[in-house]
Amino acid sequence: MKQPACFAQERRARGPMSPSIYAVILAGGSGERFWPLSRRTLPKQLLPLVDGRSLLEATIDRLDGLVPPERILVLTNAEIEWAVRGLCPSIPPRNVLVEPAKRDTAAAVALAAGWVCKQDPAATMCILSADHLIRNADAFRTDLRNAAEAAASGALVTFGIRPTWACPGYGYIETGDEIAAGDGRTTFHQALRFREKPNAELAESFLREGCFLWNAGIFVWSVHSIISEFNRHFPELAAFIARVHETPDLDALLGAEFATLPRISIDYAIMEKAHEVWVAAAGFDWDDLGGWPSLARYLAADEHGNACNGPMTVQESSGNMVHAPANTHVALLGVNDLIVVQSGDALLICNRHEAERIKDIVKRLPPELQ
Amino acid sequence: MKQPACFAQERRARGPMSPSIYAVILAGGSGERFWPLSRRTLPKQLLPLVDGRSLLEATIDRLDGLVPPERILVLTNAEIEWAVRGLCPSIPPRNVLVEPAKRDTAAAVALAAGWVCKQDPAATMCILSADHLIRNADAFRTDLRNAAEAAASGALVTFGIRPTWACPGYGYIETGDEIAAGDGRTTFHQALRFREKPNAELAESFLREGCFLWNAGIFVWSVHSIISEFNRHFPELAAFIARVHETPDLDALLGAEFATLPRISIDYAIMEKAHEVWVAAAGFDWDDLGGWPSLARYLAADEHGNACNGPMTVQESSGNMVHAPANTHVALLGVNDLIVVQSGDALLICNRHEAERIKDIVKRLPPELQ
Repeated sequence: MKQPACFAQERRARGPMSPSIYAVILAGGSGERFWPLSRRTLPKQLLPLVDGRSLLEATIDRLDGLVPPERILVLTNAEIEWAVRGLCPSIPPRNVLVEPAKRDTAAAVALAAGWVCKQDPAATMCILSADHLIRNADAFRTDLRNAAEAAASGALVTFGIRPTWACPGYGYIETGDEIAAGDGRTTFHQALRFREKPNAELAESFLREGCFLWNAGIFVWSVHSIISEFNRHFPELAAFIARVHETPDLDALLGAEFATLPRISIDYAIMEKAHEVWVAAAGFDWDDLGGWPSLARYLAADEHGNACNGPMTVQESSGNMVHAPANTHVALLGVNDLIVVQSGDALLICNRHEAERIKDIVKRLPPELQ
Repeated sequence: MKQPACFAQERRARGPMSPSIYAVILAGGSGERFWPLSRRTLPKQLLPLVDGRSLLEATIDRLDGLVPPERILVLTNAEIEWAVRGLCPSIPPRNVLVEPAKRDTAAAVALAAGWVCKQDPAATMCILSADHLIRNADAFRTDLRNAAEAAASGALVTFGIRPTWACPGYGYIETGDEIAAGDGRTTFHQALRFREKPNAELAESFLREGCFLWNAGIFVWSVHSIISEFNRHFPELAAFIARVHETPDLDALLGAEFATLPRISIDYAIMEKAHEVWVAAAGFDWDDLGGWPSLARYLAADEHGNACNGPMTVQESSGNMVHAPANTHVALLGVNDLIVVQSGDALLICNRHEAERIKDIVKRLPPELQ
């Protein structure tokens, strides 16, 4: 297998010039959990769910002062390309790459690694999701800067979130010894093990033991390190990286090859196998907004826990969350624990405790409504 | 008190020529029970709630073959005049009268009596509501024809509905001896007593006793008889009838006087006092559509009692009623016994068992939403 130039390079000696940080924003997610506000062609990350801005825009804004727009790479898919580009006016158009098929995160990371390596083989990359809500941008940048510094050691750095409850919906990372890195404001540990979504009981024990963090899917590594790990653990994708690095026509390459890449997550493909993985305990707030109930936390609620994004008149009702068009007045009368969403040509009325199953009902809808 | 000419006339002898039947449609009701589909300026009778036609249109259609449009009088109010006229293209414009103030039914009947008397002092009048749902038009016309014939005796005829349950929301009429009248296809009784809305216990006993009918607010009488009764029991309104009969400028008269008329129902003012009142047991179906739950009966429902006026996808939900704009797809997930109505700039989510209180919540809304 031919390797791109960066493979052969020695890692640059650390010096007063830190490596450039590139940010890769994974903005291809679909997701039906915010249906009917979200649709196949308008997924969560494009919706102005919180603070009136989309999560994608907020993700870009959050990098301000740390990563300039020309070093931000946005990966998306053809269905939402137009909307993504519309929300990223500051990003150079060539920095928005369209994945021609739905693959998992390993293929996306490989594509990004090849692309970044071509710009700067000595760069540090961070992998971010466009659909996370992080409001403390200062803490985020501090942690990212420290993680970039830590990654200079050659380690793959992943971010862990201190669990606030025994959530069975996340992967967990078991942490080992603490590691001194960065300016001391971010805590790093050896990552001992990646644990898939646990059952409720196991999640409880993770919470009790105190040495487990939620796997946030945020990664920082040097281009050199991640390519080395692909080379070691996933030669098929390493070869793809090399071709991305060398091709004079990336669009043609993606059109020809991307759909043939394996569907596998970066956790499975690399993180669980790499020999030096560190986990940074996030000092920033983090929410992946898994669905309507989680969004309710960010809407103003009355004293009975009724939240609405607009004007509402309530009588003997509690625990409801309503999202309606801006000009709509909502009236609740004698109802509890509902999620009600009016958007375009659809109206959802859902038991708040059944919100996990919205994606099931969306699958049953006519395609044009999904 | 000066009396109109018709007062002095002898009732015409019954002959092969039956008296002309005039229909007076009371179309001034407001009502918040169908909010947010109904609004102050778009009350129930103007909404296409059932069969895609408004109750007002259906009321006019139902008279086809019995009362020609030029003998139909529609009473309404200024707020909805435009909409009423729009729904009554067949009715001569001069037959739509606008009450300049909200009064009760006695004033409306007095106005109508004066107007009809001026057209034909020998006429028979029937008083109809624009907001009743009656689907068996043939039976309705048969009963009305028989009631008109019965009214030739001089009696005031009111229609009673055989109770299907112990509804405490209606007035009741206690029936006495049966009376032979009409072609025999309509049953008439002496009306012994009008009973106001009973409590639940009393309503149960009315149902058990079997001699009580719901007071439907549909009346048939000769102009002569009703004017005589006003003259006897409510001289103030009898005087108003005389002025309506004589005025060369009805609009001016109404503007000057209507707001000064007493607020009293025709039941209180006349029916409970008149000496000869008959009650016709309606042979037609009747529903006054008291609110969303009653409308649910006329919408197609799935096997779990979920009714919607448009496309709907349902999962583990029962007993819900949804009314949404025609192009809206509704999804229900794990919810029960709700009334959900999306209309224009408002969205109502209501416990089905609390629907009686929709009018309370409407009162709390900004005026422009009522």
